[in-house]
Amino acid sequence: MSRARDAAIAAATELFAERGYRQVTIRDIATLAGLSPAMVMKSVGNKQKLFHDVVTVEPLPLHSVPTSELGTALVRDLLDRFHADAVEPMTRVLMLRMTAPDPEPLRKEFVRGYFDPLTERLGGGDEAQLRAELAISALLGLAATLRIFSSTQTPKRYDEVLHRYGALVQQLIDG
Amino acid sequence: MSRARDAAIAAATELFAERGYRQVTIRDIATLAGLSPAMVMKSVGNKQKLFHDVVTVEPLPLHSVPTSELGTALVRDLLDRFHADAVEPMTRVLMLRMTAPDPEPLRKEFVRGYFDPLTERLGGGDEAQLRAELAISALLGLAATLRIFSSTQTPKRYDEVLHRYGALVQQLIDG
Repeated sequence: MSRARDAAIAAATELFAERGYRQVTIRDIATLAGLSPAMVMKSVGNKQKLFHDVVTVEPLPLHSVPTSELGTALVRDLLDRFHADAVEPMTRVLMLRMTAPDPEPLRKEFVRGYFDPLTERLGGGDEAQLRAELAISALLGLAATLRIFSSTQTPKRYDEVLHRYGALVQQLIDG
Repeated sequence: MSRARDAAIAAATELFAERGYRQVTIRDIATLAGLSPAMVMKSVGNKQKLFHDVVTVEPLPLHSVPTSELGTALVRDLLDRFHADAVEPMTRVLMLRMTAPDPEPLRKEFVRGYFDPLTERLGGGDEAQLRAELAISALLGLAATLRIFSSTQTPKRYDEVLHRYGALVQQLIDG
């Protein structure tokens, strides 16, 4: 049962992030997981419950790099995930938030996974929070144009993007 | 018939942008438009056709301001729309793109409405396109954190956000 549950959760995580809530069926999840639809329902409950089980936000990797290098490190991570064809947690949560039957828990997960840890890293308080919100805005926007609107020059110019956009995220972090 | 069509299109524009494709029914559109579902179908065809009729992207307002002031002007517009509780075209197209049954036409509309006009304004060519893509990224990210993830310090600090984020979009435009 636990192996079936793990397989169903893994399949659901992938499909919901790709297509959003409404366009995924229990049958789709069962097919990808190699289970029967009945087994999916038995191991995880209904689709809405499953959706809320898989929507934990992957937090921003706040490296051990000094705060003065954080902007570039975060942009580098984002570009490296894109070029490695790896999942982008920021656009994943955007898709989940925009298609969730109940969006509020997703919004809170985003705040807890992104705004809060960076605010804390920058010393806490309103001023740190403003800097964190603006830096996250810049990162989210870069992820969205790369992943959702397929900007075409940005992927070709790794070094320039890292240099220009990294410097800019750093400025927002520095305040 | 034309008045019914206009009412159906106006209602569909509002509902699709708010909830995405799947979570809107012909009945919802009919109710908001003050029409019968049969009249909606008769005047606009089916739901998918209607969706593609309403998804024209509202282009970026590329003011008559000098290019050296464009970054601040674009951030000011975005903040003013937010504070006036007006529709945000950038997050509207994001919602439509993420929920569209066929996302490719939406992606192309975004490129035509945002990347292309700014690239042209910046003189055309690959270098101008890179600058346009990065500036649009920063704007889209600010719109998304304000509208989709409800950042809380950003709306309270109009002048600082305009100054800091405007300067940064300007740097991306300047290259």
